[in-house]
Amino acid sequence: MSAPPPPMSGLIVRSEQPFNAEPPLPHLRAAFVTPQATFYVRSHGEVPRLDEAHHRLRVGGRVAQPLDLSMAELRQRFPHRTVPAVLQCAGNRRSDLHRVRPVSGDLWAPGAIGHAEWTGVPLAEVLRAAGAAPDEALHVAFSASDMVDMPGEESFRFGISIPMGKAMSGEVLLAFAINGEALTPEHGFPLRVVVPGFAGIRSAKWVTGITVQDEPADTPMQRKNYKLLPPDIAAPPFDWERGFTINEMPLTSAICEPEEQATLPAGPTLLRGYATASGRGVTRVDVSADGGRRWQQAELERRPGAPWSWTFWQTRLELSPGEHELVVRAWDSAGQTQPASPEEVWNAKGYLCASWHRVRVRAD
Amino acid sequence: MSAPPPPMSGLIVRSEQPFNAEPPLPHLRAAFVTPQATFYVRSHGEVPRLDEAHHRLRVGGRVAQPLDLSMAELRQRFPHRTVPAVLQCAGNRRSDLHRVRPVSGDLWAPGAIGHAEWTGVPLAEVLRAAGAAPDEALHVAFSASDMVDMPGEESFRFGISIPMGKAMSGEVLLAFAINGEALTPEHGFPLRVVVPGFAGIRSAKWVTGITVQDEPADTPMQRKNYKLLPPDIAAPPFDWERGFTINEMPLTSAICEPEEQATLPAGPTLLRGYATASGRGVTRVDVSADGGRRWQQAELERRPGAPWSWTFWQTRLELSPGEHELVVRAWDSAGQTQPASPEEVWNAKGYLCASWHRVRVRAD
Repeated sequence: MSAPPPPMSGLIVRSEQPFNAEPPLPHLRAAFVTPQATFYVRSHGEVPRLDEAHHRLRVGGRVAQPLDLSMAELRQRFPHRTVPAVLQCAGNRRSDLHRVRPVSGDLWAPGAIGHAEWTGVPLAEVLRAAGAAPDEALHVAFSASDMVDMPGEESFRFGISIPMGKAMSGEVLLAFAINGEALTPEHGFPLRVVVPGFAGIRSAKWVTGITVQDEPADTPMQRKNYKLLPPDIAAPPFDWERGFTINEMPLTSAICEPEEQATLPAGPTLLRGYATASGRGVTRVDVSADGGRRWQQAELERRPGAPWSWTFWQTRLELSPGEHELVVRAWDSAGQTQPASPEEVWNAKGYLCASWHRVRVRAD
Repeated sequence: MSAPPPPMSGLIVRSEQPFNAEPPLPHLRAAFVTPQATFYVRSHGEVPRLDEAHHRLRVGGRVAQPLDLSMAELRQRFPHRTVPAVLQCAGNRRSDLHRVRPVSGDLWAPGAIGHAEWTGVPLAEVLRAAGAAPDEALHVAFSASDMVDMPGEESFRFGISIPMGKAMSGEVLLAFAINGEALTPEHGFPLRVVVPGFAGIRSAKWVTGITVQDEPADTPMQRKNYKLLPPDIAAPPFDWERGFTINEMPLTSAICEPEEQATLPAGPTLLRGYATASGRGVTRVDVSADGGRRWQQAELERRPGAPWSWTFWQTRLELSPGEHELVVRAWDSAGQTQPASPEEVWNAKGYLCASWHRVRVRAD
């Protein structure tokens, strides 16, 4: 396996092989733009160590003009764009679902998310240069350098796809930089896809190939795993046909401070966290100190004109001595809010846990 | 007041003056495209009886070239487009909130919604002809022929606005026909706005003026009423500054058959209803016969390529003899689902009741 480099030593490791890790929530909440070293890492096999000078990107399939580009050619031939965007694992907050009934997968806390300024070349520009038709029925598949080890599957090359409509939106990037610095190997050096608003799995790292095709990618992670199953499917073997493919991520929010099981002085207590609505605006964040009976609105911090960015929130609640269940829920620009209980959103693969986030603390 | 014409005699009248009425739910569920005579009616004053031959549409404000168009000029000068779209009152299902704690406004059941094929001229084409800049900071205000009577306000002319970004999307229409026939007076003859995905209040009827301006419309219904207030605001006077403007409508669903308090034969029972996600897809509809403990997926009927259309669903549930709480909840393409209880979404104005819809029946 690839040992994490020193800057990532602050992460909580959920799996050594493949390397999966997330930041402690107060670290995540410390900066509106998440430093690369604090950004969660989700791998599906060994982290490739690639050489930028020899890296190629090949664009083919249903295109008029296939391309085969070096990194220098990609950077020189196409305009650069920086997009502030949240990336988030479909399994973020899976641990809350696991407490309801066991689910499969790494038991992420709410830290499998981050918000960065991604710089790269718009995927749409590359597809246009290759003469791809912007036909909404088509799919854009990404292949990558990493070999995936999945339970019950033979080792296979990473592959995933997105619908053409999303691929042609200007916000999807072939990114070579995060927050103005080069990607580290764990985050996809020298080139990764960034699909704002979609589950992290679609943002292929170490990308080497783009194929325009009639069907979604023919890989287990596209055809099976990343689907939301109905609640009556409790254990393998899963009937994947009954699930729907996870692309856009739901409205969610989390309390980052104080942390679960914290003991605090009674009195006014600062609560801070994040909320995100994947392209919709977050219009209100409600916080409760009594499990959701009474709510108070939090102060919001966001970046105007950045629809794929997130919202930071904070407020002070008065905590009397004793046990408290702190709760947060957000509302989006369509007036949708989060379900109250993880039971309501339970699914066997533990995806999209977007119920109210609850943190139990003690005030002395 | 304007008496409803005979074709609307099947509607349930919620208010005589202004005339507000909705169809019984089995009528609503009878056709995927709601006939005009079955479509809910929401008025804010007396229904204007207008003469198409003398009707004018004036376009002004921040435009390079103000327009003053007869209906004939509007129809001849601009392309026609038909958009299948749901229109829905922001107060649809308000009665479910009223059962939690009293709210103000007409006590709509889930029938203050309909889905029709609207034909008209894209608003974007008219704005372009007037030389309006597609500046996202601007607002497009509509004025109309109806005078509004609102508690606590002097009588005023109807006025409402939408953000320029939405106005410039091709789906917003200046509509003169519904399902291939002329609008009736109750539905805005001779010209109305149709803003797919937004609360019905934005779809001004009897429209006479369009103004491009720096601020939202300066009317009580724009600046105050149609806002979602936080749950601690329980009674007037309302602090409107704490609410957020209702534009896009949330994911919702309803059971249309059987109806509340029905007595049915025990055994397999057909449940039918609608779901809508205002521009997002409805990906799954779950139905329960035991208040939401166990769920079964319904069969979905939808129109491909019509993002503003709705989804019809149906399934058979086995009902044992006794009382049952039937429940429906939908999921959208972002994996968001509806909150379980109307308590969770309660607000003093009774808007956006999008919690699980519950119907109590008895099987013999």
